[in-house]
Amino acid sequence: MTRRELVEIGITAAIVAAAAVCALGGLDDVLTFAVTGLALAALARLVGTATEQLGGRLGSGGAGVVQSALGNLPELFVALFALNKGLQDVVQSALVGSVLANSMLVLGLAFTVGGARHGTLRFNPERARLIATLTVLAAAILAMPSLAHAFHTPAARHEQALTLICAGVLLAIFALTLPSFLRGFVGEVHAPPRWSVRLTAVVLGGAAGGAALVSDWFVNALGPAIHTLHMSEDFAGLVIVAIAGNAVENVVGLQLAARNQPDFAISVIMNSSLQVTLALTPAIVFLSLFFSTHLVLTYPVLLAFSLLLAGILGAIVVYDGESNWQEGIVLVGLYVVIAASFWWGT
Amino acid sequence: MTRRELVEIGITAAIVAAAAVCALGGLDDVLTFAVTGLALAALARLVGTATEQLGGRLGSGGAGVVQSALGNLPELFVALFALNKGLQDVVQSALVGSVLANSMLVLGLAFTVGGARHGTLRFNPERARLIATLTVLAAAILAMPSLAHAFHTPAARHEQALTLICAGVLLAIFALTLPSFLRGFVGEVHAPPRWSVRLTAVVLGGAAGGAALVSDWFVNALGPAIHTLHMSEDFAGLVIVAIAGNAVENVVGLQLAARNQPDFAISVIMNSSLQVTLALTPAIVFLSLFFSTHLVLTYPVLLAFSLLLAGILGAIVVYDGESNWQEGIVLVGLYVVIAASFWWGT
Amino acid sequence: MTRRELVEIGITAAIVAAAAVCALGGLDDVLTFAVTGLALAALARLVGTATEQLGGRLGSGGAGVVQSALGNLPELFVALFALNKGLQDVVQSALVGSVLANSMLVLGLAFTVGGARHGTLRFNPERARLIATLTVLAAAILAMPSLAHAFHTPAARHEQALTLICAGVLLAIFALTLPSFLRGFVGEVHAPPRWSVRLTAVVLGGAAGGAALVSDWFVNALGPAIHTLHMSEDFAGLVIVAIAGNAVENVVGLQLAARNQPDFAISVIMNSSLQVTLALTPAIVFLSLFFSTHLVLTYPVLLAFSLLLAGILGAIVVYDGESNWQEGIVLVGLYVVIAASFWWGT
Repeated sequence: MTRRELVEIGITAAIVAAAAVCALGGLDDVLTFAVTGLALAALARLVGTATEQLGGRLGSGGAGVVQSALGNLPELFVALFALNKGLQDVVQSALVGSVLANSMLVLGLAFTVGGARHGTLRFNPERARLIATLTVLAAAILAMPSLAHAFHTPAARHEQALTLICAGVLLAIFALTLPSFLRGFVGEVHAPPRWSVRLTAVVLGGAAGGAALVSDWFVNALGPAIHTLHMSEDFAGLVIVAIAGNAVENVVGLQLAARNQPDFAISVIMNSSLQVTLALTPAIVFLSLFFSTHLVLTYPVLLAFSLLLAGILGAIVVYDGESNWQEGIVLVGLYVVIAASFWWGT
Repeated sequence: MTRRELVEIGITAAIVAAAAVCALGGLDDVLTFAVTGLALAALARLVGTATEQLGGRLGSGGAGVVQSALGNLPELFVALFALNKGLQDVVQSALVGSVLANSMLVLGLAFTVGGARHGTLRFNPERARLIATLTVLAAAILAMPSLAHAFHTPAARHEQALTLICAGVLLAIFALTLPSFLRGFVGEVHAPPRWSVRLTAVVLGGAAGGAALVSDWFVNALGPAIHTLHMSEDFAGLVIVAIAGNAVENVVGLQLAARNQPDFAISVIMNSSLQVTLALTPAIVFLSLFFSTHLVLTYPVLLAFSLLLAGILGAIVVYDGESNWQEGIVLVGLYVVIAASFWWGT
Repeated sequence: MTRRELVEIGITAAIVAAAAVCALGGLDDVLTFAVTGLALAALARLVGTATEQLGGRLGSGGAGVVQSALGNLPELFVALFALNKGLQDVVQSALVGSVLANSMLVLGLAFTVGGARHGTLRFNPERARLIATLTVLAAAILAMPSLAHAFHTPAARHEQALTLICAGVLLAIFALTLPSFLRGFVGEVHAPPRWSVRLTAVVLGGAAGGAALVSDWFVNALGPAIHTLHMSEDFAGLVIVAIAGNAVENVVGLQLAARNQPDFAISVIMNSSLQVTLALTPAIVFLSLFFSTHLVLTYPVLLAFSLLLAGILGAIVVYDGESNWQEGIVLVGLYVVIAASFWWGT
């Protein structure tokens, strides 16, 4: 373990401790909300570091499976705890918000940062197109139950059944395409592992356990913080929870774009959207069957539309294998206006 | 006439005879529905074989005109008989369903089959883009009256007038672009004709007459079969009638994809969507003026949306001139979820 | 000043004089409406000629700034006078109509004319894609408040605030991207100026002043003319005002396409859409704060949808750097059907 990794673990532990103090000491809700959110991001980063060590051991494919499973762990915990508290709106909007934040805000910032530093960014369009095409198709699948509901079709009265069909189809697609995707990941060269299997397991276990604890505190602080800050539940999920839950992918993506690695940056950012759509959302749907609040995929129709738009516009933006900071700025602007549309609560 | 063609005619005649027994003998409705559907597909295939003989005689252009006119004959008969029985919902959803089935299900299956066998399919993007662009524009034209209706604009009270304007514009576009399209059909090399003009005319006449008869039986069995199977009228049209009516294009497209002829496969599949939008739908609108039930183009809004989505996503999928089985599987998944959204009736 | 320019000024003065006679003499409303519309187009053309003279003096960049500011002057005056008379619907639909007319009607006509004369038009796809991408993103920003309103989200009760956020974001994007855009304008070679600074200033001032006067007459005739012609306010704005206000860009774009300069033609036509979205609309929103009727960006939902569709379809059409007259005809057909959908009033 390098000095840097030790520092990372130390800082993460300190933030988690601070989060514990806030949450268990009954400190101010907004402060608790902010600190637990930060702790979630730090734990997510630690999970990333530890699975990187698995990469050298399991090969790119195996590490990819573990990373898919663990990388979304904090988001998964937050969603399940929030469902347990009946905050279905937050969960719904956080899932859509992950896609919007990735496809518009983070991609836009990456284009802006990378384009301002390096001029027109040119990347391998084939891979970007494939991810973008799969994302827009998966987004369309995810949006159908909401559209059926919004347009008052007879299926609106069967939202639970349609949700399960939709989630089943998405999970089946995920299961079928996962192997080929993992094999296809190029550019992810893994250094030989420096951690022992035992150390890796301990860190992963600790980070996962910590994420579970912190998610609980985060969700507990969420309700009061929303109330104090006068924002709507939809906005909290769409913007705050979504950005906190994807903090790591977001920061890594921006760093890569700044270092003029647009291929890798776009791959990280857009894959995150695809995973939320294809794996995380249907997984939460099925897991929620064991909870009192079942997650149904009938979003407010503006959310469903924004999801579709994010998919279609994301495809149009990356399709030519080129981007610049002007496209980036307009993407960020679109994200701001969509987020603002959800600011007000009922 | 080759032995194979004789066998084809014999089998078609046998299935039509079986359909006659079911329909006139008052056998079980679902059985009658299935057998008459099969007979329609067999007759459509026979029309295709016979017009192929015309190809060697009239040249690619002339044969194309005849094929355009006759290839959609069974769908046309079914639509007119169904309108005559007041089944407007079935007709509307069958027309949209033809586009959806072609652009999502059949294209997706072709990508899956072809991609699984031959890896990434590469095809000439220019032709595919042109058909896709024309299809999405035509789909947008076709969706406008429904959107005007769904969004309660003043035009909603003039749906018949707006339908006629819309259908008139589509037919005018069809008439203007038809000649250039026919000239442009490359890859359709026609063998010299082996049938005499008389034989061709007899087979075509027989097949067309048979299609008219069988369509009547099919539509008669449709209502009771829908009822017995507890599906909605929309689902019956969108899925069952649409797939039966396009069975031939569908099978041919899949065979071509399996044989690694993605250019020809995509051309057959996507042209079928374009013809339904640009020619068949407006033709039925005008013909329906002579019936008691006039076809108006104000679909349920979810149908109109699905049509638009099919157009836009179809364009995104084929635009890069590449496809693989992952894209294929997600397209099929999207079709399944859209179809499921229409399963329930009022 | 060349003889041709003198003739242009003379004709413009004559048409403005005729407009004055109609407007002040209380002649027939429809006649006044037509003549003042013609006078607006002539004045817009004169502004274009005069700023061209500035081009040689200020360089391409500076002239571009002035052209951006002055080129939309007639539209701006018409919008402000119409708002002053409370014709908010006309202003809203005229702004969307500018985008639709450019992206569908004029682009479609340019493709049809150019394609019919010169076969498949091939243009530099990079520039066209960039403008198309920025336009679809800006259109999505502009459509969000309307969608939030139409889908009854809580933000619907805060349409003024959401309008200001949306307009602020658009203006900020415009301000940030303007310099790079102006620098990037290639193909616009400016001849050395032949007019003195004083002459240029006099002509520009005269044209601008004339545009202000004529706009007032045009708006005064608008209401009675709409009534006499039995069209809806939406149709008047969407089609009549939009086409009159963009007459110059339209004619220039078509001429360029006919002369087989598709790059320049597409640049002129699509930039006009982008400017309306990114600059003119938010500018009118902020200026309207000084009027009794504030412009809110909550359009009828069918308008917002048409705007989004225009953006998405425009991107699909130009993305491949190729177009032909078939695509052109279908675009024109789509414009006709959209326009027809707004013909009827409440």
